[in-house]
Amino acid sequence: MALIVQKYGGTSVANPERIRNVAKRVARYRAMGHQIVVVVSAMSGETNRLISLAKEIMPEPDPRELDVMVSTGEQVTIGMTALALMELGIKAKSYTGAQVKILTNDAFGKARILNIDDHNIKNDLNDGFVVVVAGFQGADGNGNITTLGRGGSDTTGVALAAALKADECQIYTDVDGVYTTDPRIVPEARRLDKITFEEMLELASQGSKVLQIRSVEFAGKYKVKLRVLSSFEDEGDGTLITFEENEGTNMEEPIISGIAFNRDEAKITVLGVPDKPGIAYQILGPIAEANIDVDMIIQNTGADGTTDFTFTVHKNEMNKALGILRDKVQGHINAREISGDDKIAKVAVVGVGMRSHVGIASQMFRTLAEEGINIQMISTSEIKIAVVIEEKYMELAVRVLHKAFELEGE
Amino acid sequence: MALIVQKYGGTSVANPERIRNVAKRVARYRAMGHQIVVVVSAMSGETNRLISLAKEIMPEPDPRELDVMVSTGEQVTIGMTALALMELGIKAKSYTGAQVKILTNDAFGKARILNIDDHNIKNDLNDGFVVVVAGFQGADGNGNITTLGRGGSDTTGVALAAALKADECQIYTDVDGVYTTDPRIVPEARRLDKITFEEMLELASQGSKVLQIRSVEFAGKYKVKLRVLSSFEDEGDGTLITFEENEGTNMEEPIISGIAFNRDEAKITVLGVPDKPGIAYQILGPIAEANIDVDMIIQNTGADGTTDFTFTVHKNEMNKALGILRDKVQGHINAREISGDDKIAKVAVVGVGMRSHVGIASQMFRTLAEEGINIQMISTSEIKIAVVIEEKYMELAVRVLHKAFELEGE
Repeated sequence: MALIVQKYGGTSVANPERIRNVAKRVARYRAMGHQIVVVVSAMSGETNRLISLAKEIMPEPDPRELDVMVSTGEQVTIGMTALALMELGIKAKSYTGAQVKILTNDAFGKARILNIDDHNIKNDLNDGFVVVVAGFQGADGNGNITTLGRGGSDTTGVALAAALKADECQIYTDVDGVYTTDPRIVPEARRLDKITFEEMLELASQGSKVLQIRSVEFAGKYKVKLRVLSSFEDEGDGTLITFEENEGTNMEEPIISGIAFNRDEAKITVLGVPDKPGIAYQILGPIAEANIDVDMIIQNTGADGTTDFTFTVHKNEMNKALGILRDKVQGHINAREISGDDKIAKVAVVGVGMRSHVGIASQMFRTLAEEGINIQMISTSEIKIAVVIEEKYMELAVRVLHKAFELEGE
Repeated sequence: MALIVQKYGGTSVANPERIRNVAKRVARYRAMGHQIVVVVSAMSGETNRLISLAKEIMPEPDPRELDVMVSTGEQVTIGMTALALMELGIKAKSYTGAQVKILTNDAFGKARILNIDDHNIKNDLNDGFVVVVAGFQGADGNGNITTLGRGGSDTTGVALAAALKADECQIYTDVDGVYTTDPRIVPEARRLDKITFEEMLELASQGSKVLQIRSVEFAGKYKVKLRVLSSFEDEGDGTLITFEENEGTNMEEPIISGIAFNRDEAKITVLGVPDKPGIAYQILGPIAEANIDVDMIIQNTGADGTTDFTFTVHKNEMNKALGILRDKVQGHINAREISGDDKIAKVAVVGVGMRSHVGIASQMFRTLAEEGINIQMISTSEIKIAVVIEEKYMELAVRVLHKAFELEGE
């Protein structure tokens, strides 16, 4: 008997029929004697509907009240899922994030989980219940409802698996595993049977969208066994996220595991900053205080004693970040110009193998050059090389890189 | 400076435009220096949409999970209402029932309020916030979400007014006050400037639908000043619910204040019961244990040592009640037959004046007889005479009684 956390995304619970299918799968695992905790997202489209309602009232909705509204999406799904299980004769009980309780900080709309009280869930599991938990949400220390931000249901699933010491966390989605890149862009993309946490982290953070980045961080930190599966197929083992590294175990394995991309970011450039200590902090401090996440950060020293500072944020937060910089920072640091560009995309080549192989970067840059794609920013880590390019070239870049690194399926 | 609780029903918050109008009214009261607590229902249609979703999954939904789903309706509205107030520059903060917290028993779908913690709301009011509370919902002692049943938002409003010792509880609805009967059935129906609690109680319980019965009980018990107003008109003082009785204050005032009706009930008859002590308890005990509310109860002694026992329940619960009687009661008490009829309606003549005047009952019965309407059950109190008739005659009965008792407006 194992304890399994199964997380189902919005498309897997898009309507009553699909929710019934989720219940049937849970019933099969239950029949094998497993204890099951089900984490569900809002029905697909519901979160956007609620955000639109809020924006009809207030174009930039107060984040506390937006969370009050948006969190109802999952609350409806947990009720429906529990009912669907009962209809199959299975004892089931639903919990909102606040009911669990999943304690978060108070960063509304992008809260982070601080602690999970596993007391009630454990009792219910021991009493034979399937426990259905609302993903994506929690409550802060004052009982205010919070949401974890887009994709936060994955984080809920992994965090619950960690708190309950579950044997496996299964992430059900509309794809049957992790691919070398998005098959909608490159039809030849190939499913990976397994992938390391590090690669997964890069693939998710670079925008592969199969798993939300924070869930992968969580899984790595708490050594949660994570598996990505399709909720629309009953066969197949999906992609297992492993701790071991591919490197060295099999020299025949490909160096590069996938091409990730992301068009949700915007680039902010601060030009003509005096090149002296503390500048980076003076620029990014106010951004961090406003709870705006920053992804890539690049600084180049110029010849005239000034430097240019560039970083990327989520597109939705570009104007807020620009406002902060112009109001609070520009005068202080005497910057010549501050500009934003949301017509960019990030494309990354990811693979654990790359750290021991030279030539990946040059291969990548040559491939892009051959297509006439200009590179605006470059950022590297041990297992990835990411570039920022003009958004309109993104799909082309992904396709030619996928081919150049021979990632196609047989 | 007064503390006012304003409750807005589903039609008053049916869409963003109407929610903005609610915010504007609140802003006017705020500008007069009043402290305001706003209680809102779900947007009209939303509760039914959620119930339908649940029934698509499970035809008779588990009540705990149904409450989890249905309670999201008001949760969306509180967020929208708080946003609309903020958009007008007013500090506002929303609370779900559980957040307040409004403690109820665990009768899911028809919970009763046990206690209201006014601590957070009072603090927020003193800090200058308008507090927006979700009507219709609370949480039991174990943190399970509960709903108070249809119309429960009125109860929330009155209970909050009582707990906060508010100066007035204003119930905004789609009518501009309490009428002698439903103007949709009798166009000549007249608005009452004031009405006693007792009359209101009968009018509401008999189905006037302007206010939910439990809210009126609550208001009477805690001496809450209650006023019914239109949310679609800025003028008019609505109908004030008073504690004084009309009787004696003005002999010229009409004896009868209104005609109430209700088509939500079903009649259950237990035929051929041995006429001995304890029978009523043996029949109604199991019904009460199943949390089924009973309205009228009538027992007639027969000549053969048996008696017939008849009572009414909500239509939705007729089959459940019949099942309980047949499974648990019929054998025990040796009843000949148990039958149900949901094609009935209740019509009542209500007025404080009636206790000192003879002839009201005979006038009522004669009026119905002249139209050939058969009376199935009769029940009387000091201020009302109610009859059960065949449902198809209900509107006719209301119209002829309204005319017979000269309730038309000038």
